[in-house]
This record gives sequence, structure tokens and C-alpha cells, in this order.
Amino acid sequence: MVKHAICNGKVIFEAEAVLPITAREVQCNFSVYEALRVLSGHAVHLDDHYKRLCSSARDIGLTLGVGLDELKDSLAALIEADSLTDATIRILAVGGKVNTLFITWNPLLTYPDSYYTEGVAVTTYSGERFLPTCKTSNLLLSYLALENAKSQGAFEALLVNRYHQVLEGTRSNFYALKGNVLQTAPDDQVLSGVTRISVEKAAEELGLTIVFSSPDVAELSSYDALFLSSTSMAAMPISSVDGVSRHDDFSLVLKIKDYVRAHECD
Amino acid sequence: MVKHAICNGKVIFEAEAVLPITAREVQCNFSVYEALRVLSGHAVHLDDHYKRLCSSARDIGLTLGVGLDELKDSLAALIEADSLTDATIRILAVGGKVNTLFITWNPLLTYPDSYYTEGVAVTTYSGERFLPTCKTSNLLLSYLALENAKSQGAFEALLVNRYHQVLEGTRSNFYALKGNVLQTAPDDQVLSGVTRISVEKAAEELGLTIVFSSPDVAELSSYDALFLSSTSMAAMPISSVDGVSRHDDFSLVLKIKDYVRAHECD
Repeated sequence: MVKHAICNGKVIFEAEAVLPITAREVQCNFSVYEALRVLSGHAVHLDDHYKRLCSSARDIGLTLGVGLDELKDSLAALIEADSLTDATIRILAVGGKVNTLFITWNPLLTYPDSYYTEGVAVTTYSGERFLPTCKTSNLLLSYLALENAKSQGAFEALLVNRYHQVLEGTRSNFYALKGNVLQTAPDDQVLSGVTRISVEKAAEELGLTIVFSSPDVAELSSYDALFLSSTSMAAMPISSVDGVSRHDDFSLVLKIKDYVRAHECD
Repeated sequence: MVKHAICNGKVIFEAEAVLPITAREVQCNFSVYEALRVLSGHAVHLDDHYKRLCSSARDIGLTLGVGLDELKDSLAALIEADSLTDATIRILAVGGKVNTLFITWNPLLTYPDSYYTEGVAVTTYSGERFLPTCKTSNLLLSYLALENAKSQGAFEALLVNRYHQVLEGTRSNFYALKGNVLQTAPDDQVLSGVTRISVEKAAEELGLTIVFSSPDVAELSSYDALFLSSTSMAAMPISSVDGVSRHDDFSLVLKIKDYVRAHECD
């Protein structure tokens, strides 16, 4: 099957979704993006993703120039062109003399059930994202941190700031549970994940108190459970940090995950 | 005239020098680059640029896979294809399952004489480059800082770290002169510019003492002269910082510039 993509509202072949290396904006990652899920032909939380795309663009001075209705039409055209039911979608807005907005897709990213029942291994990596609240293409830190994690057989890397605090994963938000308290980084220090909003609603629903303060990396062992959230992961429990196994009760994490998944089509 | 480029040793049309937005390495700026000058058909300091390209690649775990001789052959092919005499060349090495090495060119970047006789305006911008000694494509900070400078009518932005020290420009190294002392950032905190090596040789030649310590941004007015260096600028005096004019004697800076230019074909 020949895959398609969208470029500025037009259906193109995916192979044509390319950028010129001679454009300064391309050379300098002057672009923002979103990743979202299409389930049964329906784009999950599209409004929230569009809102964040606009926010990321505004923060770096990139004029998006595409309205939500236009984006919905483009997405519908792509879904029709490739008869998509379930898929992971990437929206990329690149600045320039003329801005370019691409939409591409991949098969829906899912994880084995065992990732949820047994948890996943994570590593830690020192580094601070530039413009942490923006989803820009300036991703080398995240790339290197995740490659480092993978080389150790881990699933995700946790980014640790200069104060030894765990802020977030390279493609996920991070949480620590102790008693009925859910601890996570302050909003102005991390990407405001679309799924993060759902996790916070789940926490409220479950009677948890949310404390916006990043856990110290040296104190992770003192928490009852740790987990990640993202569009693809929902809420995923952590089984080990830097090779040190944890033996947590995942039941609360899995309740949060179930809440997130149940509200994907709100 | 239809411009050409090089892709993995082959001459292609410049319009074909593109990267797929679907490749993770492209999405994450897993690439390194160099900019150099061709003068009268001769690539200036190519060995030094190649050495730094290798060093940048090694530091992020990118396998370059191209030797200096191969690079020389590619460059010669591009020079022949477009009958280049004087040009600014960009080498871009992108990681991936198969690495890609591009060479593209633009007309030689030169500046009016007045930039040297009158100096250039600079602004300051808070931010620290990720992997400061590597010339990677993770350039959003530099892009935003330079756009900010341009919006104020300035030529370059100086990057200021969390300790209020001026480390470097977005595409240049930075120096401050006081008496017979030349002050600049320590090598491990900035890009080791190829022209920086020439500036240091010039300083020795002129009997200056080099101190590797970054000037405090609040103390810039206490220096006799400030200047930038880069492949294109050689050594360029600064006439104002954040709109505050300076009235420096540029003679020492211009001696350094002349030394740098005179040694381009060493």
C-alpha cells in the first residue's frame, strides 16, 4: 500500500513529505508538532492537541495559520485516503517564508498488556529541555536520553534537572504516588501533556491530592508507585529505575489508566 | 542556473537535497554540520572543519562513515558541477539506519567594510546551548536569539548563561579585550570555532595574554573592545550592546582580523 500524507491541506504521497535542508527554519528546528491517536476513525482529543499546537507555535513566534476546522478537514482527507481506522497521527508545523503544515500517520502505537501488569524499566538522564512547555522539534536531548535508555534495555528515560529533580520522560509525563498524594512537576517546567489533563481528572475522581512538586531522584524509592503518562501509554507503571527493581502495587496506577482510556472519546 | 548539491558522494540537484519528515533522526535533529568557505576554488581549513565534524558526530554517537579524502572528492565534484570559485559551503551529516551526508553551497557570505570600520550592534539573550562543544542541528535557541537580535536591528545575539556570563554568539565566538589581555570563554563551554584557533594564534603573535574566562554581562563596559569571530566574519568589532553604544578603538581587533584573513590559505 502506498501511504499518503497531508501537506498544507492537500493529499500527497508520504514519500513527498520532505523538507529542504537548505531552508534556515529547517536547519534550526523552527517547528512544532503534535502526536495524537485516531480510534475507529475518530481523532482523540483533537481540540486539546490543536490548542497545544497553537500554544507551542505562539511561544516560539511561529504563525500557524491553520484553523481547527481546516485541520479537521485535512485529517478527514487523510483518514479517507488511506482508509484509516486506528492510527497514530503526527502534525508538524514548520516555519518559513511560507509555513508548511504536514500530517503523517503510522499504525497505532500500542504496548503489550505485560507493560501494564509488570511495569516498565526506566533510566535517568541529566538534562533540561529548552522551552519545556513547548512541543518543538528541538529534540536532540530527548533523542539521546531515550537512545541511552534503550541501550540499557529500558523503555523510557526520565529527565533530571540541575536540582536533581525528576521532571518528565522524553515522551511522557512522570508521577510519583505516596499514600493518597500524587506528585508531579509544576506545569511551567514540563510539557503540559494532553493525557496529563486526564490523569489529573482521574486523580480527583479517585480522591487523590495532587502536589505539583518534582520528586528528588534520590528519593524515588520512598514512593509507593511511579508511573508515566502519554497519549500512547495512557498511564504506565514503572518497575525499575536505573536497574534497581521496585516491587510496587500497581492497582492505583491501573485505575488511572482505565479512567484515561475510558475518557478518550469524550 | 540550476544549483547542485552532494548526497553521499553523488552530485544531485539542490532541489533534491531534502529529508523525510517521517524519519525519527530527522524529527529529533540527530545530525551535525559544518560551514566553511571556498576561496578561489580552495576549501579553507577543510582539515580543521572535518576534524570538528568528526568530533561533533562522535560526541552524539553518530557514525560519520566518510573519510577526509572522500569528503575532498565530493567537494571537488560540487565545485566542478557548479563552477564554484568563491562560496560558503554547508556539510550536513544526518544519522539514521543509513547515514546521509549532504554538501550544499551558497554565494560567499561577506560583509560590508563598514561592519569592520564602524563595528556591529549586538544584543544579549539568556540561554545555554545543549552540548556546547558540538555543532549539532539542535539550533532553536540560536535561531530565536538571532531573530530577537534582528528584530532590534542588531547583527548578532550574545548568549548569556545562568551565571550572567557571555559565552558566545549564535554563530560566532566572543572576545573581550582589556590592556594586553584577551578574554574568552573556556573551551569546554563553547563551540571550538575553527576561526577561534586563528584568533588565538593572532593574539599570541600580537603579544596578548589569553585568559579563558567568560566576561560578566554587567561588566562589558569595563573592557577596551569586544569582538566576534567566525568563518565568515573573521574578527568583527562590536559597536553597541543592547542599544548602548561603545566608543572603542578597533585597531587591535582589525589587526586580529587581518591576521585571520591572511592565514586562510595556510
